[in-house]
Amino acid sequence: MTFSMTDAARKAQIASRQMARLSATQKNAVLASIADTLVSQTESILVANKLDLDAAQESGLDAAMQDRLRLTPASIIDIANAVREIAAQQDPVGEITKIQRRPSGIEVGKMRIPLGVIAMIYESRPNVTIDAAALCLKAGNAVILRGGKEAIHSNLALAKCIESALAEHKVSPDAVVVVPDPDRAIMNELMTLSQYVDLIIPRGGESLIRFVSENSQVPVIQHFKGVCHFYVDDAADLNKALALLDNGKVQRVSACNSLETLLVHKDIAAAFLPMASELFKQAKVKVHACEQSIGYLENAEPATEADWDAEYLALEIAVRVVEDFDAAIAHIDAHSSSHTEVIATQDYSRAQQFIRCVNSAVVMANASSRFSDGGELGLGAEIGISTSKLHAYGPMGAESLTTEKFIVLGDGETRA
Amino acid sequence: MTFSMTDAARKAQIASRQMARLSATQKNAVLASIADTLVSQTESILVANKLDLDAAQESGLDAAMQDRLRLTPASIIDIANAVREIAAQQDPVGEITKIQRRPSGIEVGKMRIPLGVIAMIYESRPNVTIDAAALCLKAGNAVILRGGKEAIHSNLALAKCIESALAEHKVSPDAVVVVPDPDRAIMNELMTLSQYVDLIIPRGGESLIRFVSENSQVPVIQHFKGVCHFYVDDAADLNKALALLDNGKVQRVSACNSLETLLVHKDIAAAFLPMASELFKQAKVKVHACEQSIGYLENAEPATEADWDAEYLALEIAVRVVEDFDAAIAHIDAHSSSHTEVIATQDYSRAQQFIRCVNSAVVMANASSRFSDGGELGLGAEIGISTSKLHAYGPMGAESLTTEKFIVLGDGETRA
Repeated sequence: MTFSMTDAARKAQIASRQMARLSATQKNAVLASIADTLVSQTESILVANKLDLDAAQESGLDAAMQDRLRLTPASIIDIANAVREIAAQQDPVGEITKIQRRPSGIEVGKMRIPLGVIAMIYESRPNVTIDAAALCLKAGNAVILRGGKEAIHSNLALAKCIESALAEHKVSPDAVVVVPDPDRAIMNELMTLSQYVDLIIPRGGESLIRFVSENSQVPVIQHFKGVCHFYVDDAADLNKALALLDNGKVQRVSACNSLETLLVHKDIAAAFLPMASELFKQAKVKVHACEQSIGYLENAEPATEADWDAEYLALEIAVRVVEDFDAAIAHIDAHSSSHTEVIATQDYSRAQQFIRCVNSAVVMANASSRFSDGGELGLGAEIGISTSKLHAYGPMGAESLTTEKFIVLGDGETRA
Repeated sequence: MTFSMTDAARKAQIASRQMARLSATQKNAVLASIADTLVSQTESILVANKLDLDAAQESGLDAAMQDRLRLTPASIIDIANAVREIAAQQDPVGEITKIQRRPSGIEVGKMRIPLGVIAMIYESRPNVTIDAAALCLKAGNAVILRGGKEAIHSNLALAKCIESALAEHKVSPDAVVVVPDPDRAIMNELMTLSQYVDLIIPRGGESLIRFVSENSQVPVIQHFKGVCHFYVDDAADLNKALALLDNGKVQRVSACNSLETLLVHKDIAAAFLPMASELFKQAKVKVHACEQSIGYLENAEPATEADWDAEYLALEIAVRVVEDFDAAIAHIDAHSSSHTEVIATQDYSRAQQFIRCVNSAVVMANASSRFSDGGELGLGAEIGISTSKLHAYGPMGAESLTTEKFIVLGDGETRA
């Protein structure tokens, strides 16, 4: 039987109603079974993964991509543990807030409910199949998973584990759809199904995200890139600032919450930039410097306009001296990717102003940009980081996969 | 000089940063000036409105449309008072919630911020120009207003009042853009400007909303229709139920929160349907009845499948007898427009189950569907009713025009 995307989405919507009505205990039992099954089915998962790895090698996929594709007994245990952690999190569904009695006599409140049907469109990493399914189920949603063709055998093997866990707990098999056909036409069809699908989250390269954003009729939450700024104010503690610079730029260059631009107040440039230069030298960070900073920075290259918008994701940084606090804010306003921005300052008013004025998803005073992550911010597992403001902004946990309805309790009241 | 939509949107984004930083006092002062100016400029507004009314008559616009277009000294006072009420509401911006200290030592919280730039696309009613501008400004946003061509002179006269209020308080004139050219190409251009515009809210007929939803690259919040259900449970208080039916169906048939479908538990059908029939007869409500109810309902016509999805917006109702509570829920699941659903029951468990299970935007027990309205639910003025779950679900007040960013307060913490 051929796979019909529309049919699967329609059934997922029906299954989503069952999902929405499950208790936290029931959902957590499904998650525990998924984790157990992953571990017990390690062998068959690795056999499937081998098919993908062989195909990847044959087609000459680059080494980094092959690496992302690879599962091992240890990585399967990690994936299973992540599912158990999601199960252990608080259930976001059912929370009632803001109850008030209105002049008409009715009681009005808001109740948190699942979004319904969530579709993930993603590339190589097969662990996303399990992570995303677990988070969506935790929040009471049905989920449609459309992974890349390079991981199709791994994804289908993982899908079997989910399927058996759902069956064990009498949850409709339609609640988790792993799209078995990586054909692009099916993805395109998925993006038209706004009557059945409530949200699409694309994860992967910028071109994938842009394609989905521009072509989907289903609402999309996207995460484009992280051009994170670090502003060292003239009232900064320079040693703290240096530690934040080190952690933010050097710890994990490939992360979207790594620093890409350093802004330094002109009055502190002569003191701080030589310290930064020494750090960059030690850590082998390539520096793109403005005219006013280049003299302080060993082996720096002159920055071009493009550097102010660059997401290097590498040991590279853009450095600019700014006239004052306002100039730092203006630079961030002009070049922010709405991801994460940090100020280092010991001045109370400046810290407060920065926190208030800068409207990126995560705004920090005297903390490392590397904390801009669901786990570190206290959300538990993360399904992505939104840099668009609608619905969710910043790291998205299980709560971001829910919405709120109004509830009204009356005793026969009518409107005057 | 010709109007450039892209240029105006780009400038609106810059102005939105100023808007976001205004205090509640400053924003309320602007709103007060708008209200005052509207009243003092009544004469020139009416002159402009006359141009639209004359054109409408000439082009043979129907009477209802002409009526919606018409401004009077009294309606201008009403519009001004609505602006003053919005000014009197609490400012949603700046609220800090969910502050927690993390194991790493950082403090993490969420701060409510404006969305940025909001575009309204709407039809004839010129009051939307002021209502929408006032709500968007209240929430600290810049706003782009694209009204219908039939109201263009009125809208431009209202725009002048806004302009003078902004100038009086030294707010950038770019914060409120009233699109001076009703050409469709300009609307189409607006829908592509996702780098400048954060949200589009279409208001008007279903075809307009569908067109914008399907073609916009900017996120859209839409309100399609309200097929509101009223389920009379076998444990209902029949007199209360009758009052809710009367209020919900008859009070204002053109409202989207009016009832369109009555579901009646089979065990109470013989008692309740004759009461309903009498009400329908008195109020001249045309009835489309299922096979099991038609015998009780005077002059009823047999319902067709189409009746279960009809938004009559008229003195018309679909009536169906259901086997039990579950059958009522199943009918609502299948035919809901995600707007408002009501149960009448004196049974505690059924009321609770209904409130939990039905995931429309507004779910009520023993209250009139007519309460499904921003003002009645306590939101103050309303910019629309969302029937899509992302970002906002149900009546949208000023808070729905904001989002939340993460804020992090540290003292030099770095990630391990």
